[in-house]
Amino acid sequence: MRDVAVIGIGQTKIDEHWDKSLRELAGDAALSAMIDAGVSKVDSVYVGNMLSDISNLQAHLGSLVADWIGNRFAEAVKIESACSSGSAAFRAGYLSVASGEIDCALVVGVEKMTDSPGAEITTGLATAADADWEVDHGLSFVALNALIMKRYLYEYGWEARDFAEFSINAHENAMFNPYARFHMPITESSFSKSPMICDPINLLDASPIGDGAAAAILVNADMAPANLSRIIVAGSAAATDSLAVHSRKAPLWLWAAEQSTQKAYIQAGIGPEQINVFEYHDAFTIMAALSLEAAGFAEPGRGPSLAKEGAIKVGGKIPVATFGGLKARGHPVGATGLYQIAEVILQLRGEAGQTQVPDPEFGMAQNIGGSGSNIVTHIFQRLD
Amino acid sequence: MRDVAVIGIGQTKIDEHWDKSLRELAGDAALSAMIDAGVSKVDSVYVGNMLSDISNLQAHLGSLVADWIGNRFAEAVKIESACSSGSAAFRAGYLSVASGEIDCALVVGVEKMTDSPGAEITTGLATAADADWEVDHGLSFVALNALIMKRYLYEYGWEARDFAEFSINAHENAMFNPYARFHMPITESSFSKSPMICDPINLLDASPIGDGAAAAILVNADMAPANLSRIIVAGSAAATDSLAVHSRKAPLWLWAAEQSTQKAYIQAGIGPEQINVFEYHDAFTIMAALSLEAAGFAEPGRGPSLAKEGAIKVGGKIPVATFGGLKARGHPVGATGLYQIAEVILQLRGEAGQTQVPDPEFGMAQNIGGSGSNIVTHIFQRLD
Repeated sequence: MRDVAVIGIGQTKIDEHWDKSLRELAGDAALSAMIDAGVSKVDSVYVGNMLSDISNLQAHLGSLVADWIGNRFAEAVKIESACSSGSAAFRAGYLSVASGEIDCALVVGVEKMTDSPGAEITTGLATAADADWEVDHGLSFVALNALIMKRYLYEYGWEARDFAEFSINAHENAMFNPYARFHMPITESSFSKSPMICDPINLLDASPIGDGAAAAILVNADMAPANLSRIIVAGSAAATDSLAVHSRKAPLWLWAAEQSTQKAYIQAGIGPEQINVFEYHDAFTIMAALSLEAAGFAEPGRGPSLAKEGAIKVGGKIPVATFGGLKARGHPVGATGLYQIAEVILQLRGEAGQTQVPDPEFGMAQNIGGSGSNIVTHIFQRLD
Repeated sequence: MRDVAVIGIGQTKIDEHWDKSLRELAGDAALSAMIDAGVSKVDSVYVGNMLSDISNLQAHLGSLVADWIGNRFAEAVKIESACSSGSAAFRAGYLSVASGEIDCALVVGVEKMTDSPGAEITTGLATAADADWEVDHGLSFVALNALIMKRYLYEYGWEARDFAEFSINAHENAMFNPYARFHMPITESSFSKSPMICDPINLLDASPIGDGAAAAILVNADMAPANLSRIIVAGSAAATDSLAVHSRKAPLWLWAAEQSTQKAYIQAGIGPEQINVFEYHDAFTIMAALSLEAAGFAEPGRGPSLAKEGAIKVGGKIPVATFGGLKARGHPVGATGLYQIAEVILQLRGEAGQTQVPDPEFGMAQNIGGSGSNIVTHIFQRLD
């Protein structure tokens, strides 16, 4: 397989975009990435999206995006794996270039959620869970995460307030990210006073939905000018677990995260201690804790310690959510994986501004689909 | 890139499967393919599906299928490009094996449409068209095809009854296919008496929806025993055109079909005259005519001549719909691409029974997404 370099990225602000259609959002991110990369044409387009069928009554986003950005005739498809759709699309783009089939691929993650009534979005998000064995019995997606968190508190003796630092760190970092949905610092006090959504998950444990798109341009590393191909994909892996939580051997262990992270570490030839920045999938604070554990940064049940000790801050042992994470940057579900990747690239380029991690060589982005049932991990490396 | 062999296929009957859930249908086809291939485990799963979000309130089919067939932990995603989702998934599986990343991939196409009320399916199918510029103005998916057909009749001087032979041939061949939805021969008289759906498309111009799943197992050709790896992927290509018909340069020319077919011919090192069997995308008879033209079997405007002359029958110059085509086998949208591929494989294996094409070496399957906006073409070759 060929080495693959990421030579361009693009993002739109995550917001309620009443003035932009689905294709405009995707196009804005895609064209930004193409300008960033200095390319005017791509050979193929991979779109990560979860909800457009339900939210926008529009399927077929491959053709929609390829056409809109002036790349009609390019090969184009949509890739879906619930909330990890963005990274799954990135992986499809990566394989197309690594294989030798495609020389220049565009990957776009896009989601436009705020046009739809809230109930429709709740129904839509629940399609990530098991329709027959979870949703039909009344579980929403938040409820599933609440059950996992409740069990976690019980097993490991934490209290809900011990998760506050995950959200405080995310909101702190988002202050410096122009693309983040929230620019609003929070405190332990506001966290503990925030309204309960589904016990024990309160409003500030949960990430907000939003409209947004992010994109990346991938090329064969040998073909790109050396100054442009400094950031390569050092590891790319995906794994699944059961769709329903109750079918898992251990509901508090993200087995698919462990699997995909281990594969990516082996491909990159490194271990967790060499990761300088980790964009994790903090859709809920419980997922932040579980991700840190499954990726090898904390022992089982010890994720919240890292947050409480400040290890997750910029300058700490393992900086996370350096642009606000899902929690404060926002979580336009099918686009999130591309935001995470764009943020890691910015860090490796040294373009992360106020939240720049010092001199990073390796950055990791991990995207979780469903309640842990489809997890995609990428490790990026800066070559000097 | 490595050579890729198709070593197993599986199909379920296309029908109203009230007794089978989405996962059971997909699983039945997947497990049949695995038994056919003699493998008990796959490295990755690619699911082609278009409508499960709307029809079954279930996204995340990668994890759903991988788990159900006992391959939990395998990498798995859903690929969508409207009605060409099945072939797009096959192409993703092909690239994963050709790249060297995956040794054994399962591709499943599945669609369960008949649980939903008709209006919901009409809405769902319309998501394949342009929501902003076509559907919002009142066009359904049949209506779009009717506009194309009307223009075709006007431009080339045909009458609607000249399309009868496409459907008669399809129903004739479906008589011998146990997986076909219809086992019901039709005649010119029944064709011309059939009720109008959307002028000039009548009921017997149009393919029926249905529930169904089909699957294939792909492996690195060098790894498989010689007797199992006789059928290889000789060409695989995809191309897009504008999502909306009105944006196309020539609404009567399937540009994306021409592009993807030409690429596939070049990859296989052949031309149309060497194709022994062609499973085309006869969702409507107008698409049958346009496909034959774009793939190089007829001059522009002359597609219906091939049908009228009998060239499309088994034993003719270019046999099509040899198992009934979309018209009579049925069209469970996201699964169709895999049915087409399974049928070409059966022909190349010499296992096509009563509709066996004599001693074929090359077979082609072409799958159309939308009204021609995303077209995927595969050429398979039997090595002796």
